[in-house]
Amino acid sequence: MVTESAASPNGYVQPDIDVQALAALLDGEYAEVRDLVRTNLTTYAGVLDEAEQLGFDEFRERVRELVVEMAATGQTGMGFPKEYGGGGDIGASIAAFETLAFGDLSVLVKVGVQFGLFGGAILHLGTKRHHEAYLPRLITGELMGCFAMTETGHGSNVQALGTVARYDADSQEFVITTGGDQARKDYIGNAARHAELAVVFAQLEVGGEHRGVHAFVVPVRVGGEVAPGVRIEDDGRKMGLNGVDNGRIWFDGVRVPREALLDKFAEVTPEGVYQSPIDNPGRRFFTMLGTLVQGRVSVAGGAVNAGKVALAIATKYADRRRQFEAASDGEEQVLLDYGMHQRRLLPLIARTYALHFAQDVLRTQLHEVFSGDRDDEQARRELEARAAGTKALSTWHATRTIQECREACGGAGYLAVNRFAALKADSDVFATFEGDNHVLLQLVAKGLLTHYASEFESMDQLGMVRYVTNLAVETVIEKTSAHKLLERVRDLLPGGDEWDQEAGLLDSEYQLAMLRFREEHMLAGAARRLKRGIDQKVHPGVVFSRVQDHVIAVAHAHVERLVLEAFVDKTRQLPDGDNKVALGLLCDLFALSTIEADRAWFMEHGRLTLQRSKAIRREVNDLCRKVRPLAADFVDAWNIPPQLLRSPDLVG
Amino acid sequence: MVTESAASPNGYVQPDIDVQALAALLDGEYAEVRDLVRTNLTTYAGVLDEAEQLGFDEFRERVRELVVEMAATGQTGMGFPKEYGGGGDIGASIAAFETLAFGDLSVLVKVGVQFGLFGGAILHLGTKRHHEAYLPRLITGELMGCFAMTETGHGSNVQALGTVARYDADSQEFVITTGGDQARKDYIGNAARHAELAVVFAQLEVGGEHRGVHAFVVPVRVGGEVAPGVRIEDDGRKMGLNGVDNGRIWFDGVRVPREALLDKFAEVTPEGVYQSPIDNPGRRFFTMLGTLVQGRVSVAGGAVNAGKVALAIATKYADRRRQFEAASDGEEQVLLDYGMHQRRLLPLIARTYALHFAQDVLRTQLHEVFSGDRDDEQARRELEARAAGTKALSTWHATRTIQECREACGGAGYLAVNRFAALKADSDVFATFEGDNHVLLQLVAKGLLTHYASEFESMDQLGMVRYVTNLAVETVIEKTSAHKLLERVRDLLPGGDEWDQEAGLLDSEYQLAMLRFREEHMLAGAARRLKRGIDQKVHPGVVFSRVQDHVIAVAHAHVERLVLEAFVDKTRQLPDGDNKVALGLLCDLFALSTIEADRAWFMEHGRLTLQRSKAIRREVNDLCRKVRPLAADFVDAWNIPPQLLRSPDLVG
Repeated sequence: MVTESAASPNGYVQPDIDVQALAALLDGEYAEVRDLVRTNLTTYAGVLDEAEQLGFDEFRERVRELVVEMAATGQTGMGFPKEYGGGGDIGASIAAFETLAFGDLSVLVKVGVQFGLFGGAILHLGTKRHHEAYLPRLITGELMGCFAMTETGHGSNVQALGTVARYDADSQEFVITTGGDQARKDYIGNAARHAELAVVFAQLEVGGEHRGVHAFVVPVRVGGEVAPGVRIEDDGRKMGLNGVDNGRIWFDGVRVPREALLDKFAEVTPEGVYQSPIDNPGRRFFTMLGTLVQGRVSVAGGAVNAGKVALAIATKYADRRRQFEAASDGEEQVLLDYGMHQRRLLPLIARTYALHFAQDVLRTQLHEVFSGDRDDEQARRELEARAAGTKALSTWHATRTIQECREACGGAGYLAVNRFAALKADSDVFATFEGDNHVLLQLVAKGLLTHYASEFESMDQLGMVRYVTNLAVETVIEKTSAHKLLERVRDLLPGGDEWDQEAGLLDSEYQLAMLRFREEHMLAGAARRLKRGIDQKVHPGVVFSRVQDHVIAVAHAHVERLVLEAFVDKTRQLPDGDNKVALGLLCDLFALSTIEADRAWFMEHGRLTLQRSKAIRREVNDLCRKVRPLAADFVDAWNIPPQLLRSPDLVG
Repeated sequence: MVTESAASPNGYVQPDIDVQALAALLDGEYAEVRDLVRTNLTTYAGVLDEAEQLGFDEFRERVRELVVEMAATGQTGMGFPKEYGGGGDIGASIAAFETLAFGDLSVLVKVGVQFGLFGGAILHLGTKRHHEAYLPRLITGELMGCFAMTETGHGSNVQALGTVARYDADSQEFVITTGGDQARKDYIGNAARHAELAVVFAQLEVGGEHRGVHAFVVPVRVGGEVAPGVRIEDDGRKMGLNGVDNGRIWFDGVRVPREALLDKFAEVTPEGVYQSPIDNPGRRFFTMLGTLVQGRVSVAGGAVNAGKVALAIATKYADRRRQFEAASDGEEQVLLDYGMHQRRLLPLIARTYALHFAQDVLRTQLHEVFSGDRDDEQARRELEARAAGTKALSTWHATRTIQECREACGGAGYLAVNRFAALKADSDVFATFEGDNHVLLQLVAKGLLTHYASEFESMDQLGMVRYVTNLAVETVIEKTSAHKLLERVRDLLPGGDEWDQEAGLLDSEYQLAMLRFREEHMLAGAARRLKRGIDQKVHPGVVFSRVQDHVIAVAHAHVERLVLEAFVDKTRQLPDGDNKVALGLLCDLFALSTIEADRAWFMEHGRLTLQRSKAIRREVNDLCRKVRPLAADFVDAWNIPPQLLRSPDLVG
């Protein structure tokens, strides 16, 4: 093998990874449920073939069957209260979902639709009567439902939905009506075939007053037939996820009883009096939505694991495939010994580990908030912002990773038997569903710019521009001042004002300081730009449009900083030993390749000299060479059942 | 609309595009054949539905039918000599192929396999007897064939193929044998179902001597049945292009007559004497391969046009879809008025135009070389390098563009009816077939590093390292010296030694000088690094591995410079008027967004101050705002038949 020797002249000794111990670290406290899912996935590994072989309708039915069979093992009901047959552990339910992403993603998404979206809405927006009526049967998969929020005309701006639910006090019913074709519910999973019930989001009107969007339980099928007043159309073939039956729904004056309102946050008395503990309609709606944050946490974790499947295949292939002679010994060189191939795959492995550990932190926060261990408003808002941002970065990372891995496996990567086809097609929509990634990053930025003001989530960009510009801009700038930041850094790093030139590149305090500086500098810059635009009397829409790329960059920088913190913390907590050394290398590779990717910004803002920027490039290359002999162990530690990798000709 | 007014305070007047004239400019001299293809595509637009509705086998048959029917219109035979029923115009044949990429890509690729690869091999590697025997029936599509080069074990390093053709002088036959499973032919289009003949690439052995890889015509089916000694296996489902029947072929001592050798570059006499006008076996093989360069030119052009379909849909959608209020007037804002959305789509439109014009130059070079207008060795080598590099950049651009456009269309973009699913799945392999993109860029770099030494294409990396290090490194450095370059630039730009700080950002001489400087600086750097490694007695494989990312960066920089030159030249040649102004804006957007993307490198190498780097960012944003009102016209000028865009709910 054409690589560095284990003990290089400058004293570096290559660590020897204990794969079992690393796998245990990655599985963490949820090892048991993850292993249950691995067992289930292996039992049903045939679904990966069925996805190609079965017809359109047959495959949908097969996926439904599988979801019901997996539900019987307890795997999918972890997040529901024990009294209704669930596992009473939301953290475990996320871990189970994440692990499910090693397998067919239609199964994953159908589980997400049924237990996360539909079940989650009943659980978190409904009250005891809804729980008693629906949870026991939905947890087993006997009662299938759908989550009917998105409309053709509104996917991101869901406060502007066009479906209306008018209260008829005479009959004590709500009358649900689709307000034109743009208001039809669209892309709704489980709608085209399997849902009996829909949780329908609609503009509530009571006594002529508009009360904003609320959720209602509406039967859409009775005895297998579409219910009267309901029209359903199949969304047809999609790029992927064809095991999930997405569809469109129209409601033509469909009447449901008063009790159909999921009334945890608002109720309507029989006489038609509207009551809610939350006055502000926007805030009320986003409080409701906030309870559904687990969907974003789930997708974030699922995306990371889908990417792992691609990386495991491509790394194993690159570790055995030879092409072109590199020396005169007549043997061709292994792909992973090529510097460019290392550059293509190894930073992706590093980022995957980073996002894995960031997901651990996110899942723990979710668990603490939802189990009541730490459930205050501030914690909820931070959780929602963190979930939004992590979902965006993780899903984009999955898309990029799967693409790079497919290309790195050449023509073989194009054959359906080798997983990339399904992975790519099925995971593509992750960047869109559970919130468009750009809109999610705007949400993160709004939180940062408004210090998580209580109504920040319900603000549209206009509201945000107003909020920020009405704020004394000093508040933002002070909180994020480069000066203060430098003071904080100086205490930690050598070099005084020259901290960023003196500290070692492999000092994680330096790496963190760089990402913190970037985030806070960008945040102050975005706030100043917004304020300046308004002060100059520019139209708020134009101001926002012009600053939008800065706003999104702030959010991106913020989340990347959180991700690095998670990786650094995890590595520091490890006992001394080879695994700690190995993870340290990978953490350095993640940190420096992240700084390298944005080194232009750091140079432009005086935090990186030209020489040091070049040094970072060299260090990333050096880290790639050090990680290269460990690459196979790093992907093996993900413990993906071989039956799920398939790819007989690639992984050997 | 929330945009700048047409006449802004600083005197900018928005141009008014003449779409017809721009379309004529884009279609150029091949407008007639392009319109023929547009007509054919519109006639057969139903194939886009059939791709989803028909079964696996049925769709393959349907695509075959279509290819034969299109062949009858003369569209696919443009590149063959008139005496055999062709059009006698290779440039027109490329233009036809490019335009075909607006439609279903299985049809495109099947045309490429049959007429480009199989037909091209018969035409360019065979002699009169092969032409007479096969061309008339293959041009009509009556005789289907395949191009059997790639093997499971060797896709990039095709000089190391494992199939053997031994000459048996007694029977005057070649005996073709697959040397183990890694030597089976793999991913071969037309092999699984339709090919009667295969052009098989195999190691020729004559009288015990190894003569390197040669091509043979081998019947693989007789009367619809697989021929004796031949085994064929279906590659099965692929990520996309499922209308093309890819398969694997094994040969077990299959005998073909002496005349089966495609003998333009080498022949074997009946007695078994090997004769070739080219002595060096490597050079001989790459001379043969060089005649097939049209395949890479075709894929490059096809990729650009596939990307156009995605961009046309996403731009039209972004120009009408509204989401979120931007001002207090109660109306939601059009997507394309968001700065981030402009950033996502408009530089892609600019790069698409740039690659379109670069493709014009490439196609013209191909036409000149193959029609004998300018056919010397130097011209051939430059053509081959340019084709390789353009293919890499164009296919990656297509992948990136289709992905961005899908995401920019949200959930709707995920539905199969809206084209992105097929575009993404079908075009994905473009980065791999006709040469893996990274390997192609290495080929480009080898040409640059060796000044197109006659044997550069046949060198593996080891050979290249040796060649470069045996060369006086001064030769490379002198030719590429920053000093000389600066002198050249000084004559053109104001500012003397400060040319890059003084020239206007919108001065195309400045933009070109930047890309030229980058290319030449990188080239000298790569040469020095290679030489230094060998001087330090490092293993050549390790040296190459360490320098590989530089080598590939050189090639990338070289091709981008060629692309910008093509765009600048085309714009300069236009008569004064609004179209020239509009294209000028787009060209500036391409140039500056290209410099911006690599601004870290320019800063690191002293050619961009921090202030000027930031100024480029601002200028790109400003150009996006100016291009925004023209975006719909820019995509309309591609003249894609609306039936091919489909996407009824997106483009309205």
